[in-house]
Amino acid sequence: MFSKKWNPDGKHVYITGGSTGLGLSLAQLLTKKGAHVSIVARNQDKLDKALASLEELRVNPSQILKAYSHSLDTASASTEALEAACHPFEGQAPDAVVTCAGGAAPGFFVELEEKDLFNGMQNNYWVQAWTAWAAAKKMAQQKKKGSKIVLVSSTLGLMSMLGWASYAPAKHALRGLADTLHSEMMLYGVSVSIFFPPTMSTPGLDQENKTKPAIVWKIEEGDGVLLTADQAAVSLWKGIEKGDAHITADFSTSLFRASGRGAMPRNNWILDGLYDFVAYIAVPFWRAGVDNQVRGHIQEHEEYLGKKGFYA
Amino acid sequence: MFSKKWNPDGKHVYITGGSTGLGLSLAQLLTKKGAHVSIVARNQDKLDKALASLEELRVNPSQILKAYSHSLDTASASTEALEAACHPFEGQAPDAVVTCAGGAAPGFFVELEEKDLFNGMQNNYWVQAWTAWAAAKKMAQQKKKGSKIVLVSSTLGLMSMLGWASYAPAKHALRGLADTLHSEMMLYGVSVSIFFPPTMSTPGLDQENKTKPAIVWKIEEGDGVLLTADQAAVSLWKGIEKGDAHITADFSTSLFRASGRGAMPRNNWILDGLYDFVAYIAVPFWRAGVDNQVRGHIQEHEEYLGKKGFYA
Repeated sequence: MFSKKWNPDGKHVYITGGSTGLGLSLAQLLTKKGAHVSIVARNQDKLDKALASLEELRVNPSQILKAYSHSLDTASASTEALEAACHPFEGQAPDAVVTCAGGAAPGFFVELEEKDLFNGMQNNYWVQAWTAWAAAKKMAQQKKKGSKIVLVSSTLGLMSMLGWASYAPAKHALRGLADTLHSEMMLYGVSVSIFFPPTMSTPGLDQENKTKPAIVWKIEEGDGVLLTADQAAVSLWKGIEKGDAHITADFSTSLFRASGRGAMPRNNWILDGLYDFVAYIAVPFWRAGVDNQVRGHIQEHEEYLGKKGFYA
Repeated sequence: MFSKKWNPDGKHVYITGGSTGLGLSLAQLLTKKGAHVSIVARNQDKLDKALASLEELRVNPSQILKAYSHSLDTASASTEALEAACHPFEGQAPDAVVTCAGGAAPGFFVELEEKDLFNGMQNNYWVQAWTAWAAAKKMAQQKKKGSKIVLVSSTLGLMSMLGWASYAPAKHALRGLADTLHSEMMLYGVSVSIFFPPTMSTPGLDQENKTKPAIVWKIEEGDGVLLTADQAAVSLWKGIEKGDAHITADFSTSLFRASGRGAMPRNNWILDGLYDFVAYIAVPFWRAGVDNQVRGHIQEHEEYLGKKGFYA
């Protein structure tokens, strides 16, 4: 199943969160490769602009390029959105479904409210899980062997640290779902992958930075230059093309992938062994550095909470 | 913080899911070690029996042993339950909070309904997350340095396979929460651990077996003799005593822990390196065996779905 590269020419790819950031970059890349592309998101203005950008990249007149404004919040809403996108294809399930919808809102756990934690799971797990569920059912019912489901997690789906209590659990949950489906969808000849992108310079990052605590900023400073959405989309595409179970786009996340693979197949026996070895030596130093930063922040944090009336 | 062993004598330990299975076994073990123990669950009959069993194990007359029938379904319900248990201690947060509540309902992803997936997350993530949230806030507010939060995941929080789409994501999410809080609760001197028990012979297993697909049974047959709840509780206790970030009770899960540690501290540099090496060689063989079982089940599965009208 994974021995030859997947060719998207003439295939239908369905992308959630496709109006912006990574989803849009992937949609553009696949349009250039001759795929039929359906993008789904909420905001009609952004969808219009995104669709116009796809039209400019069209490589042949028969390509079907469509944008759908739809909620993906529930199983039925996600099913409706998928059905709408399958309509121009006589109801056939897409050849590939890629779920890019999501967005982080970091903060201190003790300051988060019930709704913050709940929304984190909603926006970063369920909106992807419901699409995966609708697509899996449709692909199994139609016996669409060779089709693909690709979820999008984050580096924070493989590891975590302070500030991400409303985000990392959802991204870990997606990994649990992908690893389950990687095994289960073999029953239908459907392959399942998951992408763990690092922080990208996208509109989503600007949103996330609005609630990011200063200490989390400080720890992230060490991450260096951020990937663009276009760069991340190239890595995602290469992983899909090869059929890797776990896909990464940068060196740090590759270390966490290789040293956090659980039971998943390796992408490359030799390289992943090397990554695992490097991680075995290097990650404890990285963690010790972060732990020291956190411990060094204790007094400032107490003052911060005190000012906000936390101890009152 | 982790250099000396934790002594529960005279400490208050709060255990959710404490009326049965692992939670009850841990409550009994800690009662024998002189801890004040509060157990929380729903069913009053089971709580009464559990509390009676704790009373029999009491080692001194001043031990406070209590049982609380309470829902843990929401942030406010979990906060109320915790507050009730803190009342005999003049409102002081417990010295340790261990969240054992949960239960699995395996099934095929394409046959699960929205509510099945939703309930899986509710019963296996949120009931633990809300208790962790309530406890974290209280410990931080009262500056209870040295206190502990221990979440209970599963082997299926480190890896997964077919049948567990309503369970593995929630157990992975707990791991994401624990790894976040392991870093974040350093700000308050609170240590956070997570336990990954294998399948145990508990009342929860009888419940889970009611919906377990035959192919999942077949794959599990290779697991050998199951741990009892008492055996698992001993491993959990040893991990808490040592302050391990990730706690396991059996060899297989230790392999997945060592080869799936992400950024977490190792329990033992040499042993975990060895586990990681064994996992690097052995896990691909294990996975290949499971994959073959799944692929060998394709025809039978199609017949099964056909009979249930799945393709109609």
